[in-house]
Amino acid sequence: MTARVIVLNGGSSSGKSGIVRCLQAVLPDPWLAFGCDSLIEAMPSRMQASEAGIVLADDGGVSVGADFRALEAAWMDGIAAMARAGARIIIDDVFLGGAASQQRWQKALGDVAVLWVGVRCESAVAAGREVARGDRVQGMAASQADVVHQGVRYDLEVDTTRAESLACARAITAQVG
Amino acid sequence: MTARVIVLNGGSSSGKSGIVRCLQAVLPDPWLAFGCDSLIEAMPSRMQASEAGIVLADDGGVSVGADFRALEAAWMDGIAAMARAGARIIIDDVFLGGAASQQRWQKALGDVAVLWVGVRCESAVAAGREVARGDRVQGMAASQADVVHQGVRYDLEVDTTRAESLACARAITAQVG
Amino acid sequence: MTARVIVLNGGSSSGKSGIVRCLQAVLPDPWLAFGCDSLIEAMPSRMQASEAGIVLADDGGVSVGADFRALEAAWMDGIAAMARAGARIIIDDVFLGGAASQQRWQKALGDVAVLWVGVRCESAVAAGREVARGDRVQGMAASQADVVHQGVRYDLEVDTTRAESLACARAITAQVG
Amino acid sequence: MTARVIVLNGGSSSGKSGIVRCLQAVLPDPWLAFGCDSLIEAMPSRMQASEAGIVLADDGGVSVGADFRALEAAWMDGIAAMARAGARIIIDDVFLGGAASQQRWQKALGDVAVLWVGVRCESAVAAGREVARGDRVQGMAASQADVVHQGVRYDLEVDTTRAESLACARAITAQVG
Repeated sequence: MTARVIVLNGGSSSGKSGIVRCLQAVLPDPWLAFGCDSLIEAMPSRMQASEAGIVLADDGGVSVGADFRALEAAWMDGIAAMARAGARIIIDDVFLGGAASQQRWQKALGDVAVLWVGVRCESAVAAGREVARGDRVQGMAASQADVVHQGVRYDLEVDTTRAESLACARAITAQVG
Repeated sequence: MTARVIVLNGGSSSGKSGIVRCLQAVLPDPWLAFGCDSLIEAMPSRMQASEAGIVLADDGGVSVGADFRALEAAWMDGIAAMARAGARIIIDDVFLGGAASQQRWQKALGDVAVLWVGVRCESAVAAGREVARGDRVQGMAASQADVVHQGVRYDLEVDTTRAESLACARAITAQVG
Repeated sequence: MTARVIVLNGGSSSGKSGIVRCLQAVLPDPWLAFGCDSLIEAMPSRMQASEAGIVLADDGGVSVGADFRALEAAWMDGIAAMARAGARIIIDDVFLGGAASQQRWQKALGDVAVLWVGVRCESAVAAGREVARGDRVQGMAASQADVVHQGVRYDLEVDTTRAESLACARAITAQVG
Repeated sequence: MTARVIVLNGGSSSGKSGIVRCLQAVLPDPWLAFGCDSLIEAMPSRMQASEAGIVLADDGGVSVGADFRALEAAWMDGIAAMARAGARIIIDDVFLGGAASQQRWQKALGDVAVLWVGVRCESAVAAGREVARGDRVQGMAASQADVVHQGVRYDLEVDTTRAESLACARAITAQVG
């Protein structure tokens, strides 16, 4: 199998963004990178702080409304269409719903060849990196570290607790086929 | 006709981004916003300064390579698929190829209902706003102000030379249907 | 008098940042630019959302704590010292305390030659530009438009309601001496 | 001795910024953070690409002109004045001139109590992190890793090759007094 889509799943501050940029540098073909952050950026700013959109609670928890879910579903279909049209695509996401989140992607991606990658990071280390990023809302790293992996099936898992982004990217590249 | 996609075309510093954000605030439904900037951000950083990608010349000129064009075509197909899957979408683009650029979007969007909007700004005013943004590369505003509109057909044109973004957004909203 | 410091005062979204960048482009000597935004960025992220620091209320109001005020006073003294050491400096600030804010700068700047510039913008227009910037917190533009000018004395006032940043910058440059 | 200023020196991508934000979170008092990046941001955009300012060569080398040096000297005097006026200050810098760079700070800071901290990172690891940040100009990390420490005297050195930012910040905090 030669993957056309790489899906990275991991909690906030687990190091996905760094791995994505290293993958784009290491992979010989040009891959497009999208993710939950780029989706949120594409939404009206009012949805980032409303019942209908996404809510960042003070304790770092996140809840998602119906409008958000509908736009996300259409966006996933569009990403899948880009892959079918010939683009190679890296997605970084936070599976807040665990296995249910993966199923949403599986439904959208259908027969597209996907490499599923779990990005782990020990909770305490991820929480420290959240401080180092200077995020005003603290607590997302700790609250998401484990829950996002529940019931998710991977082709490959990497752990950024002690490995650098570039080493993780090289391990993933070796599996792309 | 009720448009599902709004395409804004205008040169650099013509005020497209401000209009996009106002449209997202004014339109009652949530619309996703994508554009040539978000596409470039999705590409490997090496493509932003290479023969295969996009090149910003010192005089503000832009040239685009084969790899860029291929990824762009797949991306356009994906945006069209998002619209067919139910998302309302605003696109802001710079039609460096004029009518040829519009045809690429028309081919991708097919039967999706589109509102084509030209965003004009007098060259000297756009050049001044480029200075006000603090861009290091100067000259894009002036070199693109007219060329991007050559041969392009619009449902509506707005001019930011003397009109505010919000007023332009309201004029566009009135045409969405 | 040849000004060594230019202080721009105006409400949120009145257009100060654009004028600052135009001033830096138009003035023949290199001028350093600092402002309340760069001060806030220099503070611990916890101060941006705490009693001791600065608080952005949901209605766009801003309140400032004792720790913030102490750091700000030292920062003002430092900016004045940079000017005395030979740097030309542009400051953009929001005089939430009106005349009292100006007096804090006057105390710090002492005998340094200052050009005081008021940046006006009609409240409705500033509020529209706030929407165009996509700020999540709305209302600062309207609530600050007039209050920041109360009791403040200027050498020059500019109004961005109908004038471009570059034109305002040129008017200011003509007064620098 | 109780330090009022902490100076962190290390090459590009050595991890200074992360340590700064962790220090601001860990230190009980509020500390202001400034650095060579905030100085460059304060300069006219034309100086970032000119003979008179700072030049980033394609190989990641950096050269600095006379105007830059003059503004930097005044800026250093101002930072020192902020410390004398009561602010606690963290500076992150890249001593491209090694010992000569340190002497410029020593001259400006005079009798202010300073904690000098060297931030080391193995060249290959720093180069990998440069890729993970997605910088378009590559090579600064490798070219600066060692040269910035030549002849510089420290109170404390930390190494981010295998230690997290937060652990480094705690080690530094223990020395602040």
